[in-house]
Amino acid sequence: MRLMNDQRIEAFMQRALIQARAANSIHEVPIGAVVVHDGRVIGTGHNLRELAEDATGHAEIYAIQEACAVLNSWRLEDCDLYVTVEPCLMCAGAILNSRIKNLYYGSPNPKGGVVDSLYQVLNDPRFNHQVNVTGGVLANESAAIMKAFFKAARKRKKLARRSGQVR
Amino acid sequence: MRLMNDQRIEAFMQRALIQARAANSIHEVPIGAVVVHDGRVIGTGHNLRELAEDATGHAEIYAIQEACAVLNSWRLEDCDLYVTVEPCLMCAGAILNSRIKNLYYGSPNPKGGVVDSLYQVLNDPRFNHQVNVTGGVLANESAAIMKAFFKAARKRKKLARRSGQVR
Repeated sequence: MRLMNDQRIEAFMQRALIQARAANSIHEVPIGAVVVHDGRVIGTGHNLRELAEDATGHAEIYAIQEACAVLNSWRLEDCDLYVTVEPCLMCAGAILNSRIKNLYYGSPNPKGGVVDSLYQVLNDPRFNHQVNVTGGVLANESAAIMKAFFKAARKRKKLARRSGQVR
Repeated sequence: MRLMNDQRIEAFMQRALIQARAANSIHEVPIGAVVVHDGRVIGTGHNLRELAEDATGHAEIYAIQEACAVLNSWRLEDCDLYVTVEPCLMCAGAILNSRIKNLYYGSPNPKGGVVDSLYQVLNDPRFNHQVNVTGGVLANESAAIMKAFFKAARKRKKLARRSGQVR
């Protein structure tokens, strides 16, 4: 096993942050993810729920699906996932189902995160797979993007209300 | 709210069982699902993980994605989901994320089910949505299909071993 140093981990998280910013630019909740295999990014994704009108349209799902397609395998046993925010239930389940080895995430999600916050599902020995979890990677950057997004969204809503576009 | 009688519930579960049998016919773990809106099936899916080489290729995910596309909305607030086996973590998360109203499932999944077996995530008040859950709908039919599938899979594996196709 090759040890990953902090610099390498942060470099891949920067790639996930690029995805988060892409989501932000189209007014989607700015969460980004990448799947890394053998030192290469083989899957990328960002939240696209609103534009795609798809409840499953989360960053991790797209990144995992792309990685499966690239490797032509549903098993991502030697892959790591980097995501800017702690995964939700659906995405944690997809991480388990795809046998991802290491998860690196940025900021915690106290209301919906199930990796450390509400549950610790990736380290439940009753499941047939466990994942090494490292949280807090470039957490400030990720949290700042989220905070700015929700501030801007509130402002857009307020302006729309004023102009009568929204009740 | 219209009350659903047992006969209606079983009729929609039969539609999910048709999906399960379709999966069985192509050697996929035989789990099927349908999403129902206003008395109509608007999303169907069956497990397709092996053929699609996609870790997210579960029955519920396909059914939810199709329903979202049909309604052009990621919110399936007035929809019910019928699935032949108790959902896994990923699919339970997708059910929460899509705001499905009622879940009906067939047989329990003691090793991976998170609706009643290992967790009860659909009734966790900490999440922003809860789901009415009814398990055990046509459970014998669903369990019989699963049992026959795994028996046949073991037989295929045994035969393949004998003929030297598999170590």
